[in-house]
Amino acid sequence: MSEPVPQETQSVPPAVQVTTAPAPTQAGEGETPAGPSKGELKKRAKEAEKAKKAAERAAREEEERKKREAKEAEDHAKQNYGKLPLHQSQERNHRKFLKFAELSPESVGQRVVFRARMHNSRAQGAKIVFLAFRQQTHTLQGVLVVSGEKDENQVSKQMLKYSQLIPSESIVLVEGVIKSAEVKSCTITNYEVGIHKLFTAVEVGELPFSIDDASRAEADFEKAEKDENLQYSRVALPTRLDNRVMDLRTPTNQAIFRIQSAVGQLFRDYLNSQGFIEIHSPKLQGAATESGASVFKVQYFNGTAFLAQSPQLAKQMAIAGDFERVYEIGPVFRAEDSNTHRHMTEFMGLDLEMAFEEHYHEVLEVLDEMLKNIFKGLQSKFQHEIEVIKKQFPHEDFLFLDETLKLPFKEGIKMLKEAGAKGSDGEELGELDDLSTENEKFLGRLVREKYKTDYFILDKFPLAIRPFYTMPDPTDSTLSNSYDFFMRGEEILSGAQRVHDPVFLAERMKSVGIDPASMTGYLDAFKLGAPPHAGGGIGLERVVMLFLKLGNIRRASLFPRDPKRLNP
Amino acid sequence: MSEPVPQETQSVPPAVQVTTAPAPTQAGEGETPAGPSKGELKKRAKEAEKAKKAAERAAREEEERKKREAKEAEDHAKQNYGKLPLHQSQERNHRKFLKFAELSPESVGQRVVFRARMHNSRAQGAKIVFLAFRQQTHTLQGVLVVSGEKDENQVSKQMLKYSQLIPSESIVLVEGVIKSAEVKSCTITNYEVGIHKLFTAVEVGELPFSIDDASRAEADFEKAEKDENLQYSRVALPTRLDNRVMDLRTPTNQAIFRIQSAVGQLFRDYLNSQGFIEIHSPKLQGAATESGASVFKVQYFNGTAFLAQSPQLAKQMAIAGDFERVYEIGPVFRAEDSNTHRHMTEFMGLDLEMAFEEHYHEVLEVLDEMLKNIFKGLQSKFQHEIEVIKKQFPHEDFLFLDETLKLPFKEGIKMLKEAGAKGSDGEELGELDDLSTENEKFLGRLVREKYKTDYFILDKFPLAIRPFYTMPDPTDSTLSNSYDFFMRGEEILSGAQRVHDPVFLAERMKSVGIDPASMTGYLDAFKLGAPPHAGGGIGLERVVMLFLKLGNIRRASLFPRDPKRLNP
Repeated sequence: MSEPVPQETQSVPPAVQVTTAPAPTQAGEGETPAGPSKGELKKRAKEAEKAKKAAERAAREEEERKKREAKEAEDHAKQNYGKLPLHQSQERNHRKFLKFAELSPESVGQRVVFRARMHNSRAQGAKIVFLAFRQQTHTLQGVLVVSGEKDENQVSKQMLKYSQLIPSESIVLVEGVIKSAEVKSCTITNYEVGIHKLFTAVEVGELPFSIDDASRAEADFEKAEKDENLQYSRVALPTRLDNRVMDLRTPTNQAIFRIQSAVGQLFRDYLNSQGFIEIHSPKLQGAATESGASVFKVQYFNGTAFLAQSPQLAKQMAIAGDFERVYEIGPVFRAEDSNTHRHMTEFMGLDLEMAFEEHYHEVLEVLDEMLKNIFKGLQSKFQHEIEVIKKQFPHEDFLFLDETLKLPFKEGIKMLKEAGAKGSDGEELGELDDLSTENEKFLGRLVREKYKTDYFILDKFPLAIRPFYTMPDPTDSTLSNSYDFFMRGEEILSGAQRVHDPVFLAERMKSVGIDPASMTGYLDAFKLGAPPHAGGGIGLERVVMLFLKLGNIRRASLFPRDPKRLNP
Repeated sequence: MSEPVPQETQSVPPAVQVTTAPAPTQAGEGETPAGPSKGELKKRAKEAEKAKKAAERAAREEEERKKREAKEAEDHAKQNYGKLPLHQSQERNHRKFLKFAELSPESVGQRVVFRARMHNSRAQGAKIVFLAFRQQTHTLQGVLVVSGEKDENQVSKQMLKYSQLIPSESIVLVEGVIKSAEVKSCTITNYEVGIHKLFTAVEVGELPFSIDDASRAEADFEKAEKDENLQYSRVALPTRLDNRVMDLRTPTNQAIFRIQSAVGQLFRDYLNSQGFIEIHSPKLQGAATESGASVFKVQYFNGTAFLAQSPQLAKQMAIAGDFERVYEIGPVFRAEDSNTHRHMTEFMGLDLEMAFEEHYHEVLEVLDEMLKNIFKGLQSKFQHEIEVIKKQFPHEDFLFLDETLKLPFKEGIKMLKEAGAKGSDGEELGELDDLSTENEKFLGRLVREKYKTDYFILDKFPLAIRPFYTMPDPTDSTLSNSYDFFMRGEEILSGAQRVHDPVFLAERMKSVGIDPASMTGYLDAFKLGAPPHAGGGIGLERVVMLFLKLGNIRRASLFPRDPKRLNP
């Protein structure tokens, strides 16, 4: 058995080494033919002494190493990071929380606290981590640097490691100091936050897709197909809609729904300034209001109700009830099995109806001014959002004229014919033919070319292609006092002067094959006397889709509904 | 055959009299035994002459009378009155039409044109008619006086007669001159219009009831019961609702729905100022959202959909989708067979949801400020409407404090017990018992007495009586971070901090007997990470009903829906 040799590089605990150190051999026991010489004994004693000292030195050194390591392992930053308990409103300190959008030169040097999503993190060497925090359309760079000082702001290696393990999309609570910086990888490029505290408030598990992938433009994916270094995953629309909560967090969607909200506000602001009041009409109806074919049936206690296909009758009754100028923003239900880019089974109708004095053009002009107010408001107050959306859905700014182009329907047909357009049956376009979707788009292009506008009005539609309650033109009985408004070649508003005389209304019903007896409630309202009136209805999502050129109406609806989708 | 005698009083035409005047008898013909004597002949000739003169005089007088009558019958005012043809927007003169609400001292002496309802008319002698014209909440006196001058402003007797025959509620077009006046029978008491032109634009037939009867206060009917000179007809609520278009024209209803509109505006104005955005969530749901019992089923193509009972899940998903602060104004559907003064199957929900930083009281305070903003806005800008409504529904102005009373639930129970209130079972009220409608009202009276307010907040409701998604109190697990707001002793807002942790949420579901698997879509939203959040929902019609003390929620709904009413 060879003697142990102290090995400083070995990690066996010194205590073990010490207790296994060789003891002097006992003399005079058993078979000892030849005892060691005196010189030999001296040598051995010397070696033993040497080994003992070595062992003692090793033990001492090991102890120091342990102390040093323990000292190093001690985490002075423990109080500065970690997972928070469930937020049950335990306490309130009335601290002001930072919103990234409010950062300004005055913020530099300030200690701030904020809540944000963990967008991503990237280590640089062993002592620095760059984190990206997200609030809606803004990302802010955070820097976490392991610090030498042992003060309350200390950042330890453990804290650094923790920060890198926080899953993306987790909600974090951050404290730090705002600094001037030049940042490339975040939307906020002139500031960053030096992190002193970092807590996870809500930890998130597996994600269906990344916010970055969901935020890319089609052009990025096309580029990625030619560059193997770019590993992008396309996120298809159905996947987005199935995971809508995740999808809604993209900067694009954050911007789209701020704009959707603004369209409603601008609609109301203008109409309120013109003496309108807001009404709310029932969506549960005792009878199908417009067309029996596309109405949803509701089991109503022991009977049947129908979901309103528009507030048409209700808003006209409000006019007969003397409210003069009314609007409504409410859901509209259409049981149409249409699976196109621009149809949904439930959408938001912005409807208005207005008594007028001399001419239905009074109403047409209010509608026009209202829409221009929306376009102007969006372009002046929501440029940031529009720019955010353009990154994913590139488009030219929406063009409109100070003085809106009002084109008689016949004039529109003429422009189309001169440009070689045909009817949907391939035949010559007739002056009283309805416009196909294709011809509407074609006309939109012709108008844009000739008049430099994405927005115009077609007036005086043929009577035969409008609903029975449309007032005929006073001089040409084949035409009517009705109009459509177009954005980028798609109809967004349809309206008309209505027939307000009950006798004439019943005649009109009969002429299109409707039995007046089936609509007595509606007729009764006019028997009580209604002033001449006109109105129109806009599809909110269509306006948003076309203004921003989103290509699919579902992108302009928070939780879209179509024949195949009822969730989430 | 006796000779004709000229009769001046007789109306036989003179021409006939003349041709039947006796001719001299022919002599020398046939049997003439004895010819007349000379004297006789002379006498006869004299008489004939006399008769001729009389006839001539009569003819002359008759002619003069006819001339005189024709002159009198000539209607120089024909162009100033009559029934207009159907208004088909025939022409446009860009005249400005008067709104009664805009009358001011500057109006005096001005020639105006306006459209109004014919409210009533009252003749004074043969040459004057007083008419009352109505525009919404205002009536203006019109005076029609037969004029001597034959100018373009002439008012003829025929015109006077015509004005009296225009049926009430017809829509008239009036031209005239505004004069200072003292008027008792109209709402506008310091002006009247001297009428020059009066046309009927829309003639109205039989009415279900009169606006005056529909506008009277209960006290008027009580007075009429004791006074046989007062012939008032009570108009019952169902009659009003069956003829809602007519009913809506009362000044009271004109005012109620202006206030209803204002509540929505004030709600939005405050929340917009606090960084909220408006969302629109689908009313068609793939699954029953809250309670399966009170949900309406919809036939959705070949499957079934459900009408949203609240936007609860959608607005929470919007928070998980990073919108931070959202609100929605939309219909809420409840298939509850409740026929009470405060239940409808469809009503307008004003809902909001908000991520908070430290404490759910941040949200409670936003809700409180929002409601106070509504109360203040109504009392400062809609005093005219409130006064109009008070005439039919007398009430004390709504009382609220600058600093809203926030009462812990336990404190409320204590106040009730001290005042002798019992539970709905007649037993002692327990600290964790739910409040019956009666006890809510009782507490409202106690609070009003002690704190002089019609508006207060109950906070910290027992956990057991709140929905599963309510966050428990951090220190007392029998309580919760939830609250109700009250107006005049009735709950108008219910809300809470929500459970945002998916694991805890699933636990809470199980503890109340809900299978988490039945709500995976909802749970999934929280697995993707939602910040701590709280919110609440208000019933628009309840706020209007209670603020104005209308006594029945149907009076605050344009076209109310209940288990027995789906029309109009």
